[in-house]
Amino acid sequence: MSDAFRTVWWEANALCLIDQRMLPADEIVVRCTSVADVATAIRTMQVRGAPAIGCAAAYAMALEARNGAADEAPAGAAHRLIERLTSAKELLDAQRPTAVNLSWATARVLNRVRRLNDPTPADIARYTLDEAHAILEEDLAMCHAIGRHGVALIPARGHVLTHCNAGGLATAGYGTALAPIRTAHEQGRPVHVYVDETRPFLQGARLTAWELQREGIPLTLITDSMAGYFMRRGEIDCVMVGADRIVANGDVANKIGTYSLAVLAHAHGIPFYIAAPSSTIDGSLPHGDSIPIEYRDPAEVTMLAGRRIAPEGVVAAHPAFDVTPSELVTAIITERGVIYPPYADQLRRMTPG
Amino acid sequence: MSDAFRTVWWEANALCLIDQRMLPADEIVVRCTSVADVATAIRTMQVRGAPAIGCAAAYAMALEARNGAADEAPAGAAHRLIERLTSAKELLDAQRPTAVNLSWATARVLNRVRRLNDPTPADIARYTLDEAHAILEEDLAMCHAIGRHGVALIPARGHVLTHCNAGGLATAGYGTALAPIRTAHEQGRPVHVYVDETRPFLQGARLTAWELQREGIPLTLITDSMAGYFMRRGEIDCVMVGADRIVANGDVANKIGTYSLAVLAHAHGIPFYIAAPSSTIDGSLPHGDSIPIEYRDPAEVTMLAGRRIAPEGVVAAHPAFDVTPSELVTAIITERGVIYPPYADQLRRMTPG
Repeated sequence: MSDAFRTVWWEANALCLIDQRMLPADEIVVRCTSVADVATAIRTMQVRGAPAIGCAAAYAMALEARNGAADEAPAGAAHRLIERLTSAKELLDAQRPTAVNLSWATARVLNRVRRLNDPTPADIARYTLDEAHAILEEDLAMCHAIGRHGVALIPARGHVLTHCNAGGLATAGYGTALAPIRTAHEQGRPVHVYVDETRPFLQGARLTAWELQREGIPLTLITDSMAGYFMRRGEIDCVMVGADRIVANGDVANKIGTYSLAVLAHAHGIPFYIAAPSSTIDGSLPHGDSIPIEYRDPAEVTMLAGRRIAPEGVVAAHPAFDVTPSELVTAIITERGVIYPPYADQLRRMTPG
Repeated sequence: MSDAFRTVWWEANALCLIDQRMLPADEIVVRCTSVADVATAIRTMQVRGAPAIGCAAAYAMALEARNGAADEAPAGAAHRLIERLTSAKELLDAQRPTAVNLSWATARVLNRVRRLNDPTPADIARYTLDEAHAILEEDLAMCHAIGRHGVALIPARGHVLTHCNAGGLATAGYGTALAPIRTAHEQGRPVHVYVDETRPFLQGARLTAWELQREGIPLTLITDSMAGYFMRRGEIDCVMVGADRIVANGDVANKIGTYSLAVLAHAHGIPFYIAAPSSTIDGSLPHGDSIPIEYRDPAEVTMLAGRRIAPEGVVAAHPAFDVTPSELVTAIITERGVIYPPYADQLRRMTPG
């Protein structure tokens, strides 16, 4: 893996994040010392990518426990602290409604302290931080496992199209959709990544291109509208993307534009792969129509790189995600292996705690 | 129609153009007095859109004839002037290789003067300008005819998705794909246009949104990656786009991203319409694979408004057009009416000149 950058890390009693809005022009570290700081970082997409958001939210819970342990008077302090953590979880979960890793991570931290027997506030602070560290470490290990399992799916020529950023910047490191690509590259196999720029936030142009370039993995940046052109020319061997939520029947929510790619891949007979940790699986929803789709500020469409690109007053829509039906998904790669349709039974066995 | 703006016009012995690179922020008029001026305007996309380019190129021929008639010594002047026009045609045609209206218009002007019997340089200058005026006037009339024929295809609810700008700014006025929409709006029928922003040049966000907004036609601006999402939600009743070249079998070259839309429309059972004047038909090419695809500067993908959006040194691709196979085209609307598959015989009868 590349140790060249860090996405989310704990340092000097604070959660540190690389500000992903500023990349690739500037590498600025944001230091969060409260739940409110982290909620803002998540909402404004200083940190983004479902697994990375999960890690950040876990540390936000640890910050709240730490701050609360200092604030609270002794009598009933532990009980009140757990109430504060419950509120913190609600605040955090509401920042990005589509990615399920966020609520998965906050629930995991909260459940950890709820299971403690008569804890002190200091215990709660220690265990929340331990759990956040565990989530981060597991995320990194999961990404490497996705790389090991997924590398077999990279075709011999290695021309992979990806969308958005499902790389090290979207996770604790190494990435989900980029993990099999990285592993293939480490093994000396040919890979060439077609990178969708991914309007409106340009995660592909700004983040995926930046990551791949740092590791010397060959890439061609394209606009989202060019994917079909290159598929028809036979230049794309497979599509590999991440996921923000995978529901019981295998339908997948991911960055807006993913669904169009899946339809195009299907029309051209090109395999379409999802790579995501099992924490992305939400067995509570039967199918993709139930997934809440986040609508973000239309100004993110009408403005580009700080400059207005559409006339003043024009109405724009900004659904930030779409849902790809499981029929269009060739395989799902998780840290536990590769699964093929039908997905329902296999996903049920993998649904996290 | 809207008379609120002009795209291409002759004034005080010069070709005037609204600079489409600067819209919507600034409405700047470019004044061209030579073939070189017009070639630059076409290459840099100060003027764009296949029919508008054709009009501009016709006036460029008139400018060359006018300038040449002043330059040339009397003996053999007419012969040398026609040679100059032949060279001017070659220069102009090379600026944008995909749109066929460009070479159609320059050929039409050149043929007009070649048919003259023993002309003087002044005759040549006069007839080239007359022919350019005729091309402009016919283009405007063709657009209105496309509106009359195409309005019947606008579904009752009137939700039309369009890509790029096939509006007044792409023609002498009124537009091709936007013509049926304008006509429906003039008739008081409901229309709502989903406008693809159309990266990388943002013709949708900058130009189509600007035109529609001026006329009070309701619109929603979306990124190119959102088209599939809105189709799947049932919000798109039909797709209507222009064309840069229609070849013998009905395959269509148009702005990059058109092909992806056609595949998506087909997958969702949504009609996909092409609207273009018959001057767009190129009967000399049997199928779309023969159409030259213009590759433009990758900096148009990696930079926006002078600001870099991808890391320094990243390789980008910029095919400016793609080809949609005729199987995906529900109907073609020209000034002569609406034609349905199979297209070959009908197109052959409509091939210009």
